[in-house]
Parts: sequence; C-alpha cells; structure tokens
Amino acid sequence: MTVTLHVCTTCRAGLPVAEGEKTPGTRLLAALALHQDLPPDLRVVGVACLSACDNGCAVALTGPGRWSYVYGRLSPDDAPDILAGARAYAAAPDGLSPWRERPMIFRKQSLARIPPMES
Amino acid sequence: MTVTLHVCTTCRAGLPVAEGEKTPGTRLLAALALHQDLPPDLRVVGVACLSACDNGCAVALTGPGRWSYVYGRLSPDDAPDILAGARAYAAAPDGLSPWRERPMIFRKQSLARIPPMES
Repeated sequence: MTVTLHVCTTCRAGLPVAEGEKTPGTRLLAALALHQDLPPDLRVVGVACLSACDNGCAVALTGPGRWSYVYGRLSPDDAPDILAGARAYAAAPDGLSPWRERPMIFRKQSLARIPPMES
Repeated sequence: MTVTLHVCTTCRAGLPVAEGEKTPGTRLLAALALHQDLPPDLRVVGVACLSACDNGCAVALTGPGRWSYVYGRLSPDDAPDILAGARAYAAAPDGLSPWRERPMIFRKQSLARIPPMES
C-alpha cells in the first residue's frame, strides 16, 4: 500500500524570493529527490500549496486507511530526517509509527494530524 | 457522499484546565452539537488530539476524494461560522469551496490542507 509524502513547492518560508530564484519549498523537494534509497511503497510528490504558509516549509504524509500528518518549519537540511520519518510512517499500517522512530522534527513540529478516512 | 468535521476534544488551547473542568475542545464540540440544522451529508465527530496543540482549538474537514483542511485558533463562539464553512465544503465535490463562501476564520486560520487520497 503506497504512502505519499507531499511537499509544498510554493512555500516561501516567510522569506522574499527574488525573480527566477527557487522557492524554499522547491529546494526542499529537490533535496528529498536526491535520495534514491526510498522504499518502493513511498512516493514523494510536489504540491502547490499546503496552506501552511505561516509555518513553512511544510510536508504532509498520507496513505489509504492511515492517519495523515502535516509537519512544518522545515528546511532542505531536514531532508534526511523527513525521509527517515516517512519510512517509519510507511512501515506502520495505520500511520501511527512508534514515537521512538519519529525524528525530532516530527515530534516537535507537527502542525496537525487527521484521522483515517472512513469509507 | 458524507464529509466529516473532526473536532479536537483534548485541546486546552494553551490554557490550564482545572480538574473536572471541560477542555476548550470539548466545549467547542458541545457548541457545534447544539446546531441541529446540519445537512445529512455532514457529520460532526470528536477526536482525541489533532496534534495542532500550538494552534488550538482545531477542527479538520475530510471526505472521500476531497482535499482535507485543518483550521486552528478557534473557540466555541466560532461554532456558527465553522458550520457555515463545513456546509460549503460539503457542497463542493472536491472540497474546494468558493473563496467567497469561506468564513473569515477559514480564510485566515488555515493550519494546513492535504490533497485528496489517490486510490
């Protein structure tokens, strides 16, 4: 069952972005894409605006039958920790990965979580 | 197609809550439950922790095939506006209700939105 790591690519992280310059969100997506060792059940996709602009950069983890999570105040430097947390999420059938497997940014920088969709 | 308004009942909205006293989140759920004129395709449910503790009280709107939304910094006084926004959400097949139909709290107090789940 595939889980998705959504990365907000429009995020400016509260900073001015000069014309032609990449947004912090786009740089975060690029930093995540550099990692080639993702499990096959995890996909990383960019999305135009997660509406978490006050707390960018932001990512969201979702998957069928799972809790969804949104994390914020992230930077491209957090890419390895984000992927470690995403792997733990992918490995937990309900999305509730063990606390000890959650990177510090996931423990401290949760913006929200949403219960699984009921069919 | 039913949509769900999740209300975080554990939220303390950053305030101390005396023993035996209801949390602000529980009072928000009670304020919402007072409204009997909900459309049949909208259900209101309490949930223990939406992990938006820095921005409580919080609610989340979800539905199959729709964008999910999380709003924060809400109080029981916002119940009528929350329900107006939830009605507009329920009426939009993809959850993207027209901007003019979103109450001010939805325009200004978004914590995050998450793309629809892909099957």
